This record gives sequence, structure tokens and C-alpha cells, in this order.
Amino acid sequence: MASMLLSRQLTCSVQQNCRLFVPGCRSISQAAAKIDVDFDYDGPLMKTEVPGPRSRELMKQLNGIQNAESVHFFCNYNESRGNYLVDVDGNRMLDLYSQISSLPIGYSHPALVKLVQQPQNVGTFINRPALGVFPPENFPEKLKESLLSVAPKGLSQIVTMSCGSCSNENAFKTIFIWYRNKERGHTGATKEELETCMINQYPGCPDYSILSFMGAFHGRTMGCLATTHSKAIHKLDIPSFDWPIAPFPRLKYPLEEFVKENQQEEARCLEEVEDLIVKYRKKKKTVAGIVVEPIQSEGGDNHASDDFFKKLRDIARKHGCAFLVDEVQTGGGCTGKFWAHEHWGLDDPADVMTFSKKMMTGGFFHKEEFRPNAPFRIFNTWLGDPSKNLLIAEVINVIKREDLLSNVTHAGKALLTGLLDLQARYPHLISRARGRGTFCSFDAPDETIRNKLILEARNKGVVLGGCGDKSIRFRPTLVFRDHHAHLFLNIFSDILADFK
Amino acid sequence: MASMLLSRQLTCSVQQNCRLFVPGCRSISQAAAKIDVDFDYDGPLMKTEVPGPRSRELMKQLNGIQNAESVHFFCNYNESRGNYLVDVDGNRMLDLYSQISSLPIGYSHPALVKLVQQPQNVGTFINRPALGVFPPENFPEKLKESLLSVAPKGLSQIVTMSCGSCSNENAFKTIFIWYRNKERGHTGATKEELETCMINQYPGCPDYSILSFMGAFHGRTMGCLATTHSKAIHKLDIPSFDWPIAPFPRLKYPLEEFVKENQQEEARCLEEVEDLIVKYRKKKKTVAGIVVEPIQSEGGDNHASDDFFKKLRDIARKHGCAFLVDEVQTGGGCTGKFWAHEHWGLDDPADVMTFSKKMMTGGFFHKEEFRPNAPFRIFNTWLGDPSKNLLIAEVINVIKREDLLSNVTHAGKALLTGLLDLQARYPHLISRARGRGTFCSFDAPDETIRNKLILEARNKGVVLGGCGDKSIRFRPTLVFRDHHAHLFLNIFSDILADFK
Repeated sequence: MASMLLSRQLTCSVQQNCRLFVPGCRSISQAAAKIDVDFDYDGPLMKTEVPGPRSRELMKQLNGIQNAESVHFFCNYNESRGNYLVDVDGNRMLDLYSQISSLPIGYSHPALVKLVQQPQNVGTFINRPALGVFPPENFPEKLKESLLSVAPKGLSQIVTMSCGSCSNENAFKTIFIWYRNKERGHTGATKEELETCMINQYPGCPDYSILSFMGAFHGRTMGCLATTHSKAIHKLDIPSFDWPIAPFPRLKYPLEEFVKENQQEEARCLEEVEDLIVKYRKKKKTVAGIVVEPIQSEGGDNHASDDFFKKLRDIARKHGCAFLVDEVQTGGGCTGKFWAHEHWGLDDPADVMTFSKKMMTGGFFHKEEFRPNAPFRIFNTWLGDPSKNLLIAEVINVIKREDLLSNVTHAGKALLTGLLDLQARYPHLISRARGRGTFCSFDAPDETIRNKLILEARNKGVVLGGCGDKSIRFRPTLVFRDHHAHLFLNIFSDILADFK
Repeated sequence: MASMLLSRQLTCSVQQNCRLFVPGCRSISQAAAKIDVDFDYDGPLMKTEVPGPRSRELMKQLNGIQNAESVHFFCNYNESRGNYLVDVDGNRMLDLYSQISSLPIGYSHPALVKLVQQPQNVGTFINRPALGVFPPENFPEKLKESLLSVAPKGLSQIVTMSCGSCSNENAFKTIFIWYRNKERGHTGATKEELETCMINQYPGCPDYSILSFMGAFHGRTMGCLATTHSKAIHKLDIPSFDWPIAPFPRLKYPLEEFVKENQQEEARCLEEVEDLIVKYRKKKKTVAGIVVEPIQSEGGDNHASDDFFKKLRDIARKHGCAFLVDEVQTGGGCTGKFWAHEHWGLDDPADVMTFSKKMMTGGFFHKEEFRPNAPFRIFNTWLGDPSKNLLIAEVINVIKREDLLSNVTHAGKALLTGLLDLQARYPHLISRARGRGTFCSFDAPDETIRNKLILEARNKGVVLGGCGDKSIRFRPTLVFRDHHAHLFLNIFSDILADFK
């Protein structure tokens, strides 16, 4: 690990940006930094503008074999560690986007390095089984040790999948099967149902629906896409289902000044949810389930109150619809609880909850009542990947051992406090600063300024991501500490001061 | 690797079954065995019936947290190697099903062991990137070295995905986008299209369709499922699309006796394809693409002639539909060519071809004309996994270095010849023996007998898989040799002789 012995010096340009923004934060930073000293860097180090010449060269190569216009830059993952992503031109950036929120405990975490290097784990990386028919000996134990150890309350059953879209697709299917069984009184399917489903027709394929919200993102496969409504580019030209779409609350900020307006807004949205359920039931497109993100992420980091979600859960129960919480982006600890919906304090748990990204494997938890009544109904060749189970088991160990949920709460407070302060100083550039844990965001005045802010931050050594029309979202890993927040705030404060 | 030094002795019960079935095959076996001597076993070794007590205990445990009725038995992957799968009760079985056809070069291949153990590869296993935005430096090079080095003729573009269903879903989406662009004259989308797509409505979400065949299996997400018609259990209770479904030829065997009938059957199916395209266009559910497997796998190993596929390709071109070949199960060399559709000798290549399973990563190749006209349209968080690219690159090296495609052709001939011989001797138990490479199968008289044959084979040390209503499919890895074929044939011959 000679490559870990790296220069701790910051370049001049970045050093200039590292003035103390909050009095006293430097001492906090240094204390906190010791925890990660083995594998984190001290700060950004920029050598070229980003993308640099090597990235541009590689973009051209990649663009010859696929549309590579979405690529920001190429990375050197062997040199990346902790909170820092190193690109192929040698630029080292504080990464607050963490692979679209999918990196749980930073780059090259020593615990994971060790795991891959253990000889007894080699077989798991190369002999990927079809888990539904030939699972490895440690499969039940590994599930209990990892995913089930963080299962949301009341959800005792688990299915692993490969990605977020497959998790949501299979959660939808689980809900449809549950609903239909309930409707037919838990008897076997009729001959007519068995025959008509083979040709995509009713009654074998009932015209059920999943209710979703405007602004939601639940994935890009066709079932998921019918519930995704964040950007046209995702949906344009793709056939879809006529499924109900409710408005998601558009809260006014600061929240304490608009209590009444926001309550009214949430009540309006909930009323429309009920109206849609009734309307779709009448037109025989029965709503079998409601799907919702605890924070609409891709759609612009839209929040609603805990009360809104509790009432939504009540509506689902009242109308006999399943209540599905999509924690693909919010799950894994980034809001300060392992699952964001645990903040709500539901009396009756969600029925199904999906995850992916930070969990390294996709999948979903569900109540026992949602268990498929026969094998092979929720199934595919791989059903996840034991090598990812191995990684997530160790990630969960690290989260527990290092008390990373408390860290997220703490670092998130530093980040949000700093954002609110910047908002007070630069109200023409920053509005609606909001967040839970480190899952923070703010709005720029428009898309152009938002994108310019992201580019300027990148060239100063900070990777940020956009969402919605004009928001910037923070998605650091769970090893993001107070001092990283202050480092970012210092850099960004300078950008805002000079912004033209 | 002390654990590799294993007993080469066969148990008595299996030895009894290892009589020479084809004169002289023992010497062939021994010669061929030397190639894999480092990592293959000599033969099955059975200690208990399968599932054994340990497997049953684990099944009970797993069944507490998910429906585990599909599990056959639990495995010890550290002890499994080459063509042999070892279960948790110490039974060593010749594996002719290879994880539902997803294991390319056998268990614990030394080349892959070495790959995982190389320190420079550790980072790739633990720092999974969002490939569409932050790819690693070697991404274009790795794609060229691996997947693109086996690209089907004329298909220069590649997109990686996580699994077969996601590959097909995204291939469908690529086709819809292509078709719509063609239809709108390659101009930008209208304001109305951009707005209506957000609420799943026409014209933003056009009512396009993909034509599929009865008996097909293309996956289980909702887009894929609308084109899957192999078993009711996959489709029951799931809402679907009204998309056209054509009959797939049902060939009569032996082929040489039913030339005329089979030609007529294929002509009938092709005629129905054209009728459906016209019919669906009239009802404004335009067929944007046709999807077909070179051999319908899950649906019962249904073959059609090369001529059928050539004519189908012509029909697609004539009507302006994309021609999508689903090689998720047939790809990766098991038919003796890298892609099964290369047997057809098409003048005009397929437009899109999907893969997964043996390729370790999902994905699809396509013609340049099908390239999405903007970034983020075909996209998701991970877009595959560089650690799987690393593995498949090495798998392809092994395939080339060891000339495994020739091996498959050779071993497949031994297997099919043996099956035809058994069919002649036991016509009341075996019919319609068929295959290409080692991708072979036969029909049992009915489902009950088929399932009983699979169980008996398993208890004699051979893992087989079923497909369709009453077929047994052979899906060995690419390192399956002549002597494995003879070993299986000997064992199976005894089972058939004693079958009651």
C-alpha cells in the first residue's frame, strides 16, 4: 500500500480557499480527521481543469462505442480513497455526489480491501450462483448478519435483486400478486386466468395500477418508468401504463414561516391521492399499491412532513392498497437513520421497502403477508450476488462499529447550518436550503446558474450533483465528517462571493 | 490451494455407472481430462441423497425469511471446481445446468482465481462506479479487449447493464426511441410530447409494441414480461401491454423425415408475423421491433431453421421494425459459435443483440443507427459493473486461448450423438433429441416423468435442468469435454434401463 503514502499538501489555489469559515472548525476537523487518517486525504488537489486532457481523450474513445455525453470525467479508482475521488489527470476532488449516492463508506475503505484479499472470499467473487436454486451455504446466515440486521420494523422477509429498478419492478409484482390473491380469496387461479395471462389479457393480467407522485423517480424499466415523473428525457418515446399520478407537496421555505400554507398543500395532495384511488377503481384500474420516496431525490429533493407520510400510510390502509417506500436513494444511513422513513414514526410499518445503491445490492423487505404463495413467481437467474452481500455485510459492520449514523447526523447539521448561513448571505444564489442528515440540497435561481455552480465547484476540487430543474443535492458518503463540511463551505463561499 | 488436492476416487455406486457406453470413449476421456486436471474432478461422488440433511436444514432457515421452495440444494462453492458442483453435504455432482446456464468456464477457474488475487484489481471490486458519469480509466480499453472483441458483425455499439431483464428492457427502449425519431423525421420532440410523456400519455408515450413469440422468455420486468410467454407462473396477476404474439414453429422430429411439414409450419408462423404487424399498425399499436431467441430456452428448447430466422429478419426490414436477437441464454459460446445467431449466416446483421448470464455482465450491442440521440436516455446508476467486465475479459481470454468454441462443437456432438442413441433405445422415455453445440435437450413423455428423471440423475451425481412442459435441457459450461458427455451418458443409460 505504498500508494497510500501520499502528499498531504494542498495546492496553493485550494489552500487559499481553505480559510476558516466557521470559527473553531479547524480544531474539530483535525480531531475528526484522525478517524479516517489511514485512508482519507487531507483535501482537494487540482492540477488541471476538469475534465482534463486525459479525460477528454478517453471520452472521445468511449464516444466511439457508445453515447458518452453523460460522462463528467474518467477516474483513477486505485488512487481514490475516503471522501476523495481522483481523476485520470491527477485531480483529487472532495466527492459530495459519491457515484450518484451509491458509495456507502468512501473509496478504498481498508475493511473492504481486506475482505477482497481474504483467500476464503475469492470463490464468492468468481462463482456467482443462481441464488434461487443453488444458494451458497452461508446465504441465510449472511442475510441475517447483514441486511436483516437493519431490517425496518415489521418487515421480516427479504428478497435480493441486482439493482434499484429490478427491486422496484419486483416489489410492484409482489404487490400485484398479493392484491390479486386477496381479491380472489386466496384460492388458486382459474383456468381462464392461467390461459389469458399467457397472452397478456384480462383476467390473467389484471389492469391494476401503482399510484405514484409527480416528481418521483423509481427507475427506468417499464414498470418503474410508469411511476417515474421527474424528467421528460427519462420517459419520452417509451410506451407506458395509464396509472394514477398524484401531486407531491411543494413546500414553501423557511418551513417555520409557512406552517399553515404547507399544511394546506399537504392536505390538498392527500385529498388528490384519495380521489385518484376512487377514480381509478371506478374505471377498473384498481390501485394495488402506492409508491413514494421519503425524499423525492432525482426529482429535486422534495420533502414532505412526517405527518404527510403518516396520513398517506393511513390512506393506503383505508383503501386496501399496499404502501411501498422506495429507499433506493435515501436508504443506507445518509439521513442519520438507517432508513429515511424511520424518521416518520409510523405505528403500522410500510408493507414493502426497496433499496439499492449504498446497499451495494438491490432488494426489498416486506411483511410476511406479502410473501409470494408459490416459488418462481418472484425470481430471476441471479437474484442478487453473494459477492455484494459479502461487501454490504462488512459495510454494515463498519457503520455500526464506527457509529456512522451519529456521524451523519452531526456532519449533516454542520453542512445544513453552513448552507443556511450561505443562503442568508447570498439569497440571490441560494434558496430553500433543506436536508436530513447529510442528505441536503438547495435551489439555485435557474438551471443555467445551477450548472455553472457545479462546474465552478468541480474546478475548485468539489464534486457536486444536480437534481430536479435547478437544485444541487449533497450525497456524501457516511464517512463525510464535520471538517469535510467546513472545507466544502469555505470553498463554496468563495465561489459565491466571486460568482458572476 | 491444498484443498485442490482431492481424492480422485469415485464411490462404488458411481463407478458401477461408469461403464463404457461408447466403445473407446475412455481413452478420449482421459486425454481430454488432462487439459483441466488442475481444477476439475474425475467424476461424481455421492454421499447422501440430494438435498441432504444439511441442505434441508438450511432450506428451513432460508424459508423463514423468504419463499425458498425453488431451492434445489445448498452449495459449497469453495469446493466446487470445473464441471463439478459440490453441495453442503459433500456430494459432488457433474453440473450440466451450470447455474441456469450462467457459468461460462466452470467453477473456481484458476485464471479467475488469479485475477481476483491480483492486488491491482482489488479497487475494482470495492469501488463500483456510476459508469455513465465517472467511468474508470480502463473502461473503453476493457470494453474493446473483452465484449467488443466478440461483437457480432455490424454491431459496433455497446451498452453494459446488470442483468438480462435490464438488458432487454433497455434494448426495447433503444428501439422505441429509434423508431420514434425515425417517425418524427429526426427533429426534436414537440412541447406536447415533452409534457404528455410526464403523465404517461400519447403522443409523448406512444402506443408502440414489440412483437414476440409464444413460448419466448425475455425476462420478468414488466416490459420484458409483456414479451415472455413460456409459463403462466411468470405472468399471472401482473398487468401487461397489448402487444402482438406470433406462434413459434413447432418442428417435428426427426427433422429429415418432416422436411415439408416443418417448412410449412415455419411459413405459417412467418405469415402470422406479417399479419400481426399489419393488424397492430392499423390499431395504432405500431410494431417498433421484433424480439426472438435463437433457441427458445426457458420455453422448452424450441428450434427453428436458419432459413426461418433469415426470413424473419427480412420481414423486420420490409416493415421497418427493428430486429432484436435475445442471446441472454444462447450467447457466450455454448452453441459452438460465440453467438448462436451467427449460425444463421445473415446478410444484414441483427439491429440489436442482448446478452447476460455467461457474459457475467448484462448488456447489448447495436448498430450505430440505434445510438440514442442524447445522453441519459439509456442510463441508470451503475450501468453494469467494472468488476464483472474484468471477469468477462479474462473469460474471453480463456475461451480464445483454450479454443473452447471448438471444444463445445466437439463435446456437443458427443452429447447429441449419445442422446440420439439413447432415444433409439428408449423411445418411450426420450423423444425430439435436439441441439446445437452443447446446447442440447430432449423431451420426456410428460412433466412427471421429466421431473423424476431429473431427481434420479441428481441422486446419481448429475445436475440437470428442465424447461418447457416436459423437456430436459443441457447447459454445461464451455469446459465440458467429451469425457464428461460419456460419463453422463453412461449414468443416464443406467437410469433409463432401470426406470419405472
